[in-house]
Amino acid sequence: MTESSRVRVAVDVMGGDNGPRDIVAGALEAAGREPGEIEVVLVGDEAEIRGFLPKPDPRVAVSVVHCSEQIGMAESAPSVYRRRKDASVVVATRLLAEHKVEAVVSAGNTGAVVTASLIGLGRVQGILRPAIAVVVPTPTGQTVLIDVGANSEVKAVHLYQFAQMGRIYAQYVFDVPNPRVGLLNIGEESTKGSEVAQQAFQLLQNGRENLNFIGNVEGRDILRGTADIVICDGFTGNVILKFAESVVWMAVETTRREMAKNLKFKMGALLLRPLLRRLKNRLNYEEYGGAPLLGVNGIVIISHGRSSAKAIMNAVRVGARSARMRIDHRIREEVSRDHRGEEASG
Amino acid sequence: MTESSRVRVAVDVMGGDNGPRDIVAGALEAAGREPGEIEVVLVGDEAEIRGFLPKPDPRVAVSVVHCSEQIGMAESAPSVYRRRKDASVVVATRLLAEHKVEAVVSAGNTGAVVTASLIGLGRVQGILRPAIAVVVPTPTGQTVLIDVGANSEVKAVHLYQFAQMGRIYAQYVFDVPNPRVGLLNIGEESTKGSEVAQQAFQLLQNGRENLNFIGNVEGRDILRGTADIVICDGFTGNVILKFAESVVWMAVETTRREMAKNLKFKMGALLLRPLLRRLKNRLNYEEYGGAPLLGVNGIVIISHGRSSAKAIMNAVRVGARSARMRIDHRIREEVSRDHRGEEASG
Repeated sequence: MTESSRVRVAVDVMGGDNGPRDIVAGALEAAGREPGEIEVVLVGDEAEIRGFLPKPDPRVAVSVVHCSEQIGMAESAPSVYRRRKDASVVVATRLLAEHKVEAVVSAGNTGAVVTASLIGLGRVQGILRPAIAVVVPTPTGQTVLIDVGANSEVKAVHLYQFAQMGRIYAQYVFDVPNPRVGLLNIGEESTKGSEVAQQAFQLLQNGRENLNFIGNVEGRDILRGTADIVICDGFTGNVILKFAESVVWMAVETTRREMAKNLKFKMGALLLRPLLRRLKNRLNYEEYGGAPLLGVNGIVIISHGRSSAKAIMNAVRVGARSARMRIDHRIREEVSRDHRGEEASG
Repeated sequence: MTESSRVRVAVDVMGGDNGPRDIVAGALEAAGREPGEIEVVLVGDEAEIRGFLPKPDPRVAVSVVHCSEQIGMAESAPSVYRRRKDASVVVATRLLAEHKVEAVVSAGNTGAVVTASLIGLGRVQGILRPAIAVVVPTPTGQTVLIDVGANSEVKAVHLYQFAQMGRIYAQYVFDVPNPRVGLLNIGEESTKGSEVAQQAFQLLQNGRENLNFIGNVEGRDILRGTADIVICDGFTGNVILKFAESVVWMAVETTRREMAKNLKFKMGALLLRPLLRRLKNRLNYEEYGGAPLLGVNGIVIISHGRSSAKAIMNAVRVGARSARMRIDHRIREEVSRDHRGEEASG
């Protein structure tokens, strides 16, 4: 596959909280935006999907793979995945494993996507723990935050590998040359934080020269863009992400309440509406195209369960770009060559 | 001391990033707001403090305790505190230990205040780890988040005690009857999160009947007010707090940039200015009166290093109220009677 060839992206349309309508719409929009470049393969109940497909358009490459099952939110045991061979997320990752597509996008439950990917695709050789990255907007660009939920407990060497995977993602998907890596901590000094954080600081500082480690960063640095990549355990990352969601909600809620009381506020809000919408989108990570699960054999993009059509479109495009840039291959090549990672993991 | 008697609050005026001016102003304002109820004892360089004092006002009870030293940001070793007997934060906690004041407020470096308090006051008997609580606003009230930085690593029993201390704070200082306690986690199910989180879930669920445990909560629940108290390790809590700060900064920064480009936005922002300011304050935890260090023998309130006069005023008033409600005594009485806590710590 050359950089310019068509990328096939399997989209698990059964995974979202709101049913397939928006997911199908977003997938089609991605294919329409990059005609000849992206083909979407909709995975789910065929009859239901057909109901949402418009008239065929030769510029929009789309196909459907029917499957009958779905994995519920509460079903997280690996055994479920081996038994439910016809669940949409299992079928989508199987298409990827069999090279029938180059990327998967799922708006399903994060745990389900991670488990299906680990079973269906496996970890990249040398990677101890796959991790989920999200892109957080900053006033001048973006920060990659990794991990945001795949690993609630980590060792220093895991954080070191998150840094390497995040570097590859930032460098090849977002064109950031020599991206700055920061370790999320509760102070700048190397002696701050938990034992794991202190060990990770040492590993990162003595790491390979391809890693531009700038030291510890704090919670406030994520949005400030102090680093291009901020690494943390999946517990902290997940909590931050969900907190950020609620900030948007609170701002909107407060504005709505106050506006009802005050005509001046109402007029002001009307004038500012495009700006407020932009601000909301800036803080709303759903708009940022989904979160790649880095470190598995294949490109898997997790989209929020309540994803809008736009979020799905962005996720499909990020998936296609990640596939074109062969992110998973680069992780295998660049990280398995990393002696420090091997030593520390042994 | 009865509930209505005058409370003496020592204010460490040397601790802030911006010098003593705002701290002195905020302390005086607190004393002025509650004449006869609050006396402030300003601790720091007397000559410097006198420069900021207005003409004596009989309704504002203020005195000065001179001290010559200061503890720098980088000095965190306990030995420093034993040697620097004349540092403002050490003097302030000594006044508290000697019952010359009923509360201390410091805008100094958090680590310095915690160390000085542990050495000068000691832990409440039975409390394994003192913790810092902050009050986060919600559309309908507030959430107490504990711990936000005293303990970067915790065990389940520590989280259990944070819940009990948070309960006492919410109940007596914020008048919340039977406050709901949530455990910060990355999912609602009891099997989610780290091993410590899972153990803490069990401890909390089987805890004393005075604890209204509602289960796991997620990052988004902090601002939504799903729980009255959210407990977490100090690493996660600290990262969230600093992240929240930067959200405000980013919103202001983006608005400022866009306004410069667009007259309509400028007019809208002018009309909305009071609302935007309210929104900013709502998300700005500095405005919420400082964070108590719960679990030491005495009332210690930590204020942000860049505290405004208003933040100091709020911190002094929260300190006075905590002293009136004898929060530290209640923690000693109610938690040392808690057999579960004792068993688990044994």
